[in-house]
Amino acid sequence: MAAEKGLTTRAADFSAWYNEIVLRAELADYSPVRGCMVIRPYGYTLWENMRDALDAMFKATGHQNAYFPLFIPQSYITREAKHVEGFAKEMAIVTHTRLVAGEGGELIPDPESKLEEPLVVRPTSETIIYDMFAKWVQSYRDLPLLINQWANVVRWEMRTRLFLRTTEFLWQEGHTAHATEEEATEEAVRMLGVYRDFMENWMAMPVLTGQKTESERFPGAVRTHALEALMQDNKALQAGTSHMLGQNFARQFDLKFQAESGQEEYAYNTSWGVSTRLIGGLVMTHGDDNGMVMPPKLAPIQVVIVPIYRKDEERERVLAKADEVSAALRAAGVRTHVDARDTLKPGPKFYEWERKGVPLRVEIGPKDMDAQQLTVVTRLELDGIPRKEAVPESQATSVISARLDDYQRALFDRALARREANTYRGVTDYAKFREIIEGDGGFVFAGWCGSADCEARVKEETKATIRVLPDEEFRSSEAPQSCLVCGAAAQHEAVWARAY
Amino acid sequence: MAAEKGLTTRAADFSAWYNEIVLRAELADYSPVRGCMVIRPYGYTLWENMRDALDAMFKATGHQNAYFPLFIPQSYITREAKHVEGFAKEMAIVTHTRLVAGEGGELIPDPESKLEEPLVVRPTSETIIYDMFAKWVQSYRDLPLLINQWANVVRWEMRTRLFLRTTEFLWQEGHTAHATEEEATEEAVRMLGVYRDFMENWMAMPVLTGQKTESERFPGAVRTHALEALMQDNKALQAGTSHMLGQNFARQFDLKFQAESGQEEYAYNTSWGVSTRLIGGLVMTHGDDNGMVMPPKLAPIQVVIVPIYRKDEERERVLAKADEVSAALRAAGVRTHVDARDTLKPGPKFYEWERKGVPLRVEIGPKDMDAQQLTVVTRLELDGIPRKEAVPESQATSVISARLDDYQRALFDRALARREANTYRGVTDYAKFREIIEGDGGFVFAGWCGSADCEARVKEETKATIRVLPDEEFRSSEAPQSCLVCGAAAQHEAVWARAY
Repeated sequence: MAAEKGLTTRAADFSAWYNEIVLRAELADYSPVRGCMVIRPYGYTLWENMRDALDAMFKATGHQNAYFPLFIPQSYITREAKHVEGFAKEMAIVTHTRLVAGEGGELIPDPESKLEEPLVVRPTSETIIYDMFAKWVQSYRDLPLLINQWANVVRWEMRTRLFLRTTEFLWQEGHTAHATEEEATEEAVRMLGVYRDFMENWMAMPVLTGQKTESERFPGAVRTHALEALMQDNKALQAGTSHMLGQNFARQFDLKFQAESGQEEYAYNTSWGVSTRLIGGLVMTHGDDNGMVMPPKLAPIQVVIVPIYRKDEERERVLAKADEVSAALRAAGVRTHVDARDTLKPGPKFYEWERKGVPLRVEIGPKDMDAQQLTVVTRLELDGIPRKEAVPESQATSVISARLDDYQRALFDRALARREANTYRGVTDYAKFREIIEGDGGFVFAGWCGSADCEARVKEETKATIRVLPDEEFRSSEAPQSCLVCGAAAQHEAVWARAY
Repeated sequence: MAAEKGLTTRAADFSAWYNEIVLRAELADYSPVRGCMVIRPYGYTLWENMRDALDAMFKATGHQNAYFPLFIPQSYITREAKHVEGFAKEMAIVTHTRLVAGEGGELIPDPESKLEEPLVVRPTSETIIYDMFAKWVQSYRDLPLLINQWANVVRWEMRTRLFLRTTEFLWQEGHTAHATEEEATEEAVRMLGVYRDFMENWMAMPVLTGQKTESERFPGAVRTHALEALMQDNKALQAGTSHMLGQNFARQFDLKFQAESGQEEYAYNTSWGVSTRLIGGLVMTHGDDNGMVMPPKLAPIQVVIVPIYRKDEERERVLAKADEVSAALRAAGVRTHVDARDTLKPGPKFYEWERKGVPLRVEIGPKDMDAQQLTVVTRLELDGIPRKEAVPESQATSVISARLDDYQRALFDRALARREANTYRGVTDYAKFREIIEGDGGFVFAGWCGSADCEARVKEETKATIRVLPDEEFRSSEAPQSCLVCGAAAQHEAVWARAY
């Protein structure tokens, strides 16, 4: 089927293509508040599916949800020195608590209501959460404390993009306290693994994991682990982070406990988060020139059923069958939708559901009914899955369930193959590096001497940054010998890319 | 078993008792931000259970979730005249977006970052949501639009109480648009019914429903339906509201659609909400002098299993059995917890779970094991349920499931009996009315002439307000003839009480 007219293609303008998909698939919309988006029902259902899957994983690893205040006293944010450096420049600040009529009669913030200490709308909650932890933790018996919060946060961004960078966004932030550095280190790595599992097996989005360099580390962290995915424009997306915070926050917020030895010690913290930004990652990993492509495990609708009829006398019969098939699939746990609208013909319905990325379309017409079969069509051509097939009605549930599994796997394989095709290893020549980065882009694995100067020079000259110092399984079989930039002995292998 | 020492009783100081339960059952805690609370894991799990039950009811009635910005431009709030009157006086106002070092080196809101138009932290979202609806709705085919949002909201309250009245709270706000007034009226009543179902059948909290008088109506609403519950101190709690907004907001936000006739018309809106305040209602409906009492359908833990052993050689055997019983109950959908802590003896464990309101406690000791039975103890004495019984292990799942159902029903019956015992009908004498209100309190059904003056006088003199003009099924069999206050002909029967 030909692509719907009027859609921008990825090749023509990737950025315009992205915005168009988000808007036309009704994932989100612009709001009248600068930099804030509205997450529309279809996008929010996707977020609910992501949240529920992650939440189950957090609970399975012993975490509990809680809720902490939206507002943080300004003095809290400024207490951890590096933390304030990282956040103080981009926050919404509440200074007044009442509106009154001004001289001209228009409403103004009441000067009488000015707060003694301004409140910051949380950009992240380490400070207020560890302050509360200090109240709750007395002894080693109270540890580990494993908490997660689902919340909205605000960072006053200058340039915003739907889902990718918005002033307000939804996320989860895990916050834990441990008796030993070793346990905190394990926790930070464990949650990195949970995120990787989610991104690969639910989002069908391959990721590299590794540690951030000092310049890219979370403000206040000892170590920042990150997950990086390669988008279809060959720019990297930081998809999630997990931080080992050491005792930095514990010292500032007096988070102490009595150890088994009887001595008072500071706890070790970790924090880790992913956000609605992941939805942007999903669009840019799988979407195509016809619109969104949803991985079945997260798709709000996995199967859309479109009844096909010409005459009124066919209508009732076909609709009844559509409902029957839908009910059978639902009983098997498949998320279905019957598009029974009389106001649209099948063609425009097909386009709409393609644009929204529904994995499978089931067509049911009088001929299908006579043959006791359904026509099953996939959203896109994928290796090993028939694009269009006639399925005997008696086998509908098992075939469709199997197709959804195959589709999920094939999306991941396709994304992985694309990433591998755009990953360059063994690059030792800086001119060659620039050629890649300034050309088609991609992940470049190369040696790095460990100096912030070399890192800064590359960023300055090419806009590429070190995405991660990759974890062992992602490292090249032969470790690079020299720094890509200065030629000195390499201390690390680094993954470079331009990033969102 | 005697009550734990050191707990305030309801009779001694209801308000102190309430705070103590909330803190000691670890439902919530005070935060360093004035008027904001921290919802602790146990309280948040309760909220998740409430949210999930309500969410399923909203979806079953055709609603979808979405998410709208936290910030609302000040001019939006002020556009609907009555709306601004009701809200403008108690809001958090964002005026700056950056901190910089001031003259003394301390951080201050950067004067350069002052917003041209202040942003209000949403106290409720009618304005911004109907502005977005106006963008999405073109024709009658786009209606009804049935949206719900789970979100945090902020109202700058002067006197705060954990859960009952906090500066920030969590809630859901439903917002719908309809083509006709009739449909909007039906929707507002339908959602009132959904709330009643939830409050009675999940919270085991009986409610009266009815309409608010003009003085108590939501700012901007044509009609406000409310649900009112009677707490154990005989004060009323407004547990939820459902508003028919008419075209008031649609006119201000240009929410128009092309009707089937081809004419442009303004849509009709409804909004409805319940909040974390309901947790306060749960505490004050069911809690007793030993702590919280959770209705089984919402309890984070329905059954706590306490292994009883003296000697180390008993320990392993008893713990294994406890895990086995727990697994069997979980497989049957029962939320269990095995309290395997070695640091506490059974007695303190019993107190702790009583304080937290867990409905059933299962004790398993060597003697129980020898007799192949469990000892099941209910959190409190309830009509028709054995307080303590030996249950053959082979029947554990069916007996415990049945007890949980019985317990849920018995809690409701007990609360209903209490409300009825503290409800006064046919009161015609104002002196008698004051005697009740200023004495033990309760719901007083009495005639009202409809004048705001009489309503204001009662409020002034007794602090009692008209909670609702009750819906038909709650009205007295004989309609009151005269106004309780002025003696003029009664226009309505009204329910009066002091309220939270």
